[in-house]
Amino acid sequence: MSESHTNHAFRLRKRPNGDLADGDLELVTEEVPELSDGQALVRTQLLSLDPTNRIWMSDIRGYMPAVPIDAVMRGLGVGEVIESKREDMPVGATVSGFVGWQELVLADDSLLEAPLSVLPDPLPAPLSAFLGAIGHTGITAYIGIDNADLKEGETIVISAACGAVGSIAGQIAREKGARVVGIAGGPEKCAHAVEKLGYDVCIDHRAGDWAEQLDAATPDGIDVDFENVGGPIMDHILGRLNIGARVSLCGMIAEYNTYNEGGEHSGGLTNIGQLIMQRATIQGFLVLDYAARFEEAITHLAGMLGAGKLHYDETIVEGGIEQAPAALAQLFSGSNMGKLLVRVSD
Amino acid sequence: MSESHTNHAFRLRKRPNGDLADGDLELVTEEVPELSDGQALVRTQLLSLDPTNRIWMSDIRGYMPAVPIDAVMRGLGVGEVIESKREDMPVGATVSGFVGWQELVLADDSLLEAPLSVLPDPLPAPLSAFLGAIGHTGITAYIGIDNADLKEGETIVISAACGAVGSIAGQIAREKGARVVGIAGGPEKCAHAVEKLGYDVCIDHRAGDWAEQLDAATPDGIDVDFENVGGPIMDHILGRLNIGARVSLCGMIAEYNTYNEGGEHSGGLTNIGQLIMQRATIQGFLVLDYAARFEEAITHLAGMLGAGKLHYDETIVEGGIEQAPAALAQLFSGSNMGKLLVRVSD
Repeated sequence: MSESHTNHAFRLRKRPNGDLADGDLELVTEEVPELSDGQALVRTQLLSLDPTNRIWMSDIRGYMPAVPIDAVMRGLGVGEVIESKREDMPVGATVSGFVGWQELVLADDSLLEAPLSVLPDPLPAPLSAFLGAIGHTGITAYIGIDNADLKEGETIVISAACGAVGSIAGQIAREKGARVVGIAGGPEKCAHAVEKLGYDVCIDHRAGDWAEQLDAATPDGIDVDFENVGGPIMDHILGRLNIGARVSLCGMIAEYNTYNEGGEHSGGLTNIGQLIMQRATIQGFLVLDYAARFEEAITHLAGMLGAGKLHYDETIVEGGIEQAPAALAQLFSGSNMGKLLVRVSD
Repeated sequence: MSESHTNHAFRLRKRPNGDLADGDLELVTEEVPELSDGQALVRTQLLSLDPTNRIWMSDIRGYMPAVPIDAVMRGLGVGEVIESKREDMPVGATVSGFVGWQELVLADDSLLEAPLSVLPDPLPAPLSAFLGAIGHTGITAYIGIDNADLKEGETIVISAACGAVGSIAGQIAREKGARVVGIAGGPEKCAHAVEKLGYDVCIDHRAGDWAEQLDAATPDGIDVDFENVGGPIMDHILGRLNIGARVSLCGMIAEYNTYNEGGEHSGGLTNIGQLIMQRATIQGFLVLDYAARFEEAITHLAGMLGAGKLHYDETIVEGGIEQAPAALAQLFSGSNMGKLLVRVSD
């Protein structure tokens, strides 16, 4: 007979207007019902914080339905099966997927947005890496670079150079023999980008002369932009594209906090006309569309990791699920380094 | 012995700030030197006015060098050889290419930006068509639709629907079995688009409710945008793209008059983030890059023309070369229908 369990979960009470604010999410305490046949109970260990979390809270025309008001906030994570009445998910198994912003997940595929995946036992890499370097963010980097068809000797610019995606993209780009120019916030991150991640140069976008620095760092123009940010820096990059350049459009975190109900986005791009002059392309992409290539990507990334050619950083916020909203804010202020996670339980 | 000739030509005296203004161009009277061996003299018959003329006047980062200050303004046109000391260009031949904004062209390939081409004799279509439906604008339409990989049953939106490029693009799109939605200025053009060019529907962008009309005309969203204009309407279109949509970016005439020396462009696009959500692509292109496919395109367009399946409109401004600046302004006010030409001589 199973013991009763108390869950702590964040439910979305209203859609944020600008930055996430008090009252948008509510931390609730709820009893978990007894398991029925075909259900398992998962204890969330690590919750992944991603810029797209903010998109999911808004009702703009997104790529997934907005999180319904009063529903548990959507989120990726990893956890351990602590009770089970389903054969494919035994007690002790480690699972990954849309666990939500909560401590306990009733793993019933008919209730969840997508089935949780059972990870290999023993784990071939640290658990956190399955949400980062060899997880969805690493795969995103791999696919985005691949889409851009980056060639040896070309110049690539990567915004959010030390972020979960950018940091991996930079190392894949370096492996391909490109000149890799990063953009990051602050001298500490920029030094890290060059010293640990192998960027040829990294521009501090908080410097007053970032535009001049970026121009100086790309004397032969820009062949590929792996774009994670958007806004004025992306606009400046568009103005330096070479003929036949490709923009791999992965994210535009600079504008997600403007995705407000009925609101206007800010940060319009004025240099799109350069796409004509330079016969250049912007390709938006979502890693979700590339499930058929996940194995290829993971194999490649795990190979780099095993060969000591893939450095990854992570910022793990301690203190349990209640830290999730404050952690999300770190992504927008840029105070995290690498993959941002909340440790929900050990 | 050849008689002496007087040329009238527009020389660019300063770069326009906004709309082309008096004093930016100067109409000069110049004697044409006697022909040397290897030279021919061409009398311009028709001058092509194209939105890109305004780009060529500015010193933004364009796709060709800006017209140098004091040089004859660059322009495409057709003319007749009236004197010749070169074997490949006999008197009476009709030629096409960069004739410039002038009455008489010294056709010496070492002096011109690109060699003039001799057209077939007899001409298989009216002379004006070689600057329009089966000329560079028709080929642009053909390539732009081809790049977008438009499929039967898809919805395509074409801005500047009655323009030199848009009017041909619309008919190629219809031939492919797409739902073809035009955008044009004024009820007269919109009626023409539907009745003569075969658009399924055409939205008058001067109507106060153009956005609602465009939404109603694209109930299944937009699969392809053949974009000639840019600005707020393009931004709105970006917000209605379907998953996997393609934007074939041909022109952005809405912003060319903002290409000022040291100036900021206006009309930033705020919906580029939708490219991520919809996994959509913007591809800028220039017809100049597709010389290897000109014959294929011309064959296709001439075939449509011969089969009575290609309607083309032209606005020919009479009154000689001095009309060129005022004619260019028509493109930006939208007062021309179809291909805009100046008759420089009969």
